[in-house]
Amino acid sequence: MEILRLGHRPGRDPRLSTHLALTARALGARALHLNPPDPALEERLAAVGRQFGGTFRVYGLRSWSKFLDDWPGTRIHLTMYGQDLEDIRATWVLREPVLLVVGGPKVPARVYHQVDYNVAVTHQPHSEVAAVALTLDRLLGLSGNTIWTGARLRVLPCERGKRVERVGPGGP
Amino acid sequence: MEILRLGHRPGRDPRLSTHLALTARALGARALHLNPPDPALEERLAAVGRQFGGTFRVYGLRSWSKFLDDWPGTRIHLTMYGQDLEDIRATWVLREPVLLVVGGPKVPARVYHQVDYNVAVTHQPHSEVAAVALTLDRLLGLSGNTIWTGARLRVLPCERGKRVERVGPGGP
Repeated sequence: MEILRLGHRPGRDPRLSTHLALTARALGARALHLNPPDPALEERLAAVGRQFGGTFRVYGLRSWSKFLDDWPGTRIHLTMYGQDLEDIRATWVLREPVLLVVGGPKVPARVYHQVDYNVAVTHQPHSEVAAVALTLDRLLGLSGNTIWTGARLRVLPCERGKRVERVGPGGP
Repeated sequence: MEILRLGHRPGRDPRLSTHLALTARALGARALHLNPPDPALEERLAAVGRQFGGTFRVYGLRSWSKFLDDWPGTRIHLTMYGQDLEDIRATWVLREPVLLVVGGPKVPARVYHQVDYNVAVTHQPHSEVAAVALTLDRLLGLSGNTIWTGARLRVLPCERGKRVERVGPGGP
């Protein structure tokens, strides 16, 4: 499962795209492809990976249209104008690797025709962060018990406050 | 179901808090309480409501601690340090109205003790937008078929492109 995010604005969207990337990572996606590229965001997510483990990566993408056409698996565009997620997922046929495409209100009209499915996570305006989270949840489940290889820190469930364990090379 | 968002920064977080508010609305929450207040965001969400219907509202909150203490129902703080959502929701006891609290990394330590449950939507860093989306989904389900009273526009499911219907006073 990978994500393609179109129309990122490196100056204006730093926090929003960071939330999108972190959500993709936490919910079990393997990578985020970001157009246009944003080296600062790539490094920010690499730093999270060094602390909390896993192999998630952000890739900068200078041109997305051929990337989308050449994608070898199923392409799902998340848009409030698509078919209901809960309906379509009963019948869709997915080929790995699956790519989730998010673009926002100004996504070029041709994207709707370059994908296999246009899917709505509700037909109300909201957020690509929420749409990606809910779709990954439906496809992969909440990966709360994933093993995050190479992690230096591990957070343990706790009723009140914080329990963080140091693991890996510097740990016990 | 209502949301309390602590530590909003009106100048810095406009898009992120807008996404949070839109997500809360789309997933069926009744209101977002925002500290500190942000009249521009309140108006932005009111405008979405005039187009797409429903009674969701954003309320500005000058002081949150007493608000939290006085909340009459169950208070759930969403934090990566809490108990696993999928575990705790098998056993938790909820009293309406339920309040979801999100604050981010700098939330005061006492919040962990002012709530009924501290709940982790994965133990990885990600986004309050995703955490609220997934928790509302678990509590209410995807409200794709909700009737949005007073809507002027309604989006219809569509395989390719956009189908938007004009409804209400100005419609058919």
